Amino acid sequence: MKSGGEAALPEWRAGFAAAPWLELRWWDDPALRPEEVDYALVWDPEPGRLAAMPNLRACFGSGAGVDAIATDPAYPKHIPLVRMSIPAATERMGEFVCWSALSLLKEARRMAIAQAERRWDEVNAPHRASQRTIGIMGLGEMGTRAATMLRGIGFPVIGWSRTRKSVPGIESYAGLAELDAFLAASDMLVCLLPATPETRGIIATPLLAKLPQGAGFIGVGRGMQHNLPDILAALDSGHLSGAVLDVFEQEPLPPEHPLWTHPRAIVTAHVASLPSRAERAAAVVERIAAFERGEPLPNLFDHAKGY
Amino acid sequence: MKSGGEAALPEWRAGFAAAPWLELRWWDDPALRPEEVDYALVWDPEPGRLAAMPNLRACFGSGAGVDAIATDPAYPKHIPLVRMSIPAATERMGEFVCWSALSLLKEARRMAIAQAERRWDEVNAPHRASQRTIGIMGLGEMGTRAATMLRGIGFPVIGWSRTRKSVPGIESYAGLAELDAFLAASDMLVCLLPATPETRGIIATPLLAKLPQGAGFIGVGRGMQHNLPDILAALDSGHLSGAVLDVFEQEPLPPEHPLWTHPRAIVTAHVASLPSRAERAAAVVERIAAFERGEPLPNLFDHAKGY
Repeated sequence: MKSGGEAALPEWRAGFAAAPWLELRWWDDPALRPEEVDYALVWDPEPGRLAAMPNLRACFGSGAGVDAIATDPAYPKHIPLVRMSIPAATERMGEFVCWSALSLLKEARRMAIAQAERRWDEVNAPHRASQRTIGIMGLGEMGTRAATMLRGIGFPVIGWSRTRKSVPGIESYAGLAELDAFLAASDMLVCLLPATPETRGIIATPLLAKLPQGAGFIGVGRGMQHNLPDILAALDSGHLSGAVLDVFEQEPLPPEHPLWTHPRAIVTAHVASLPSRAERAAAVVERIAAFERGEPLPNLFDHAKGY
Repeated sequence: MKSGGEAALPEWRAGFAAAPWLELRWWDDPALRPEEVDYALVWDPEPGRLAAMPNLRACFGSGAGVDAIATDPAYPKHIPLVRMSIPAATERMGEFVCWSALSLLKEARRMAIAQAERRWDEVNAPHRASQRTIGIMGLGEMGTRAATMLRGIGFPVIGWSRTRKSVPGIESYAGLAELDAFLAASDMLVCLLPATPETRGIIATPLLAKLPQGAGFIGVGRGMQHNLPDILAALDSGHLSGAVLDVFEQEPLPPEHPLWTHPRAIVTAHVASLPSRAERAAAVVERIAAFERGEPLPNLFDHAKGY
């Protein structure tokens, strides 16, 4: 068990208290011998560490993405790698995307700056939700749930993914051939793509330039997808009227980074879909129990596809 | 025409450009003679001024509430007083209530303070939307629309009003007899009540004390309903975990008011339902045209009921 460091251990212990048949050991416990480990729960293990556990039966990622584990060249690929795809995380992501879209619609960053300056600023937002089409890149569980919630608020929603998806009420664009048309129709772009070699640095000037003038951007996929200098330039020029960024290649985002103080950017600390530790512990307990009864593990990482 | 002052006049003129058969005059135009006025569009007229217009046929409030007009003791009650209840305002209010509820759920004020301090703060919000019941006081057009949108995001919603309402999926509480039960079930309280003598100062300690510990409050009705010292005390003690306040008895809220800097309060500048001036001008033009064709005016203020 390694996630959140030693400080988070009591919270994890409480979460696992319902499963006394599991012995919880801290990842950096000096007395921990590699052969004792049956299951690992981890976010960013030291490369080679998991490969050195001869009795490992499954590895659970503690967040939504498992690329920090999967990119370990020594990862033993015959050991199931389970993504933390639990309903609580999907719900939280949907809620966060709705909050982000409404924050851009209502110019919440401008309102927050006015409050900080104790200044009465009658922000008359130019649009209603029904006038801003939201384009979601990545129509997995999270993207699909977010789309449904956004439609409930009144936003028109379209989606883009590698293969065409059928989601009621959502126009689905597929593949590179339809990417430009999708971008041109997106007044706000939500990136919920998985971390793959193809998506590295995808949110950069060539893509942003295809969005309508004054579009908004919501970055809740993975930090490696964001070209931050390009995003900053688009915010500076006004081509992007606003952005909400929750994930960064370098986390924590350094205090001197200009995004923190940008008047059009909302910066949050990788919190979009994070379930509580109790919610995550409960999901892992349930899955280990089912696995030990002989049932298959859900949400397995596919090393060939990369997600 | 008086709303937003002389600075707003060009925007209003543009909005009324589609109706050249209407001559637009500024409220404070020194050359304006009272007998020239057929229709007034106004937010807070000087008491007695409307009564001195002998040919006035109808008065349009420029915001959602018309109490600043209706409380003029000299208001000529035989002249229709039309509330600015237009679909755009209802949509905007619903969106603003959703933004407020999600902001409280996700602890957006804490996130905004962290951003202002350039501090990486992994806020792990304790609840999902499905775990927080929202209680809406006032189930008029706006409350009903907000309720539907909130349910689309996953919040359970209940409502309270003078008489029982039938809104699909919303449990309806009615009258003073059911107020305590409604409050006890509201993890977040939304005030969308009209301004009446009965609702003056209603958001005060006796009512707040009946909410669950750690509840949230969203004040988007009228400023005269808020007892700000009591709301501040509840925020200080933590009985209220957060509040979004958009309306105030004294507007603008003075810069020295402690709400501006409270770590649990989001302050906005009476913007929740404000349609753009173009949207409002279009609604007034349409209503005057229909009125002159002999059709009745919609959304009339009822002086007996007080809303």
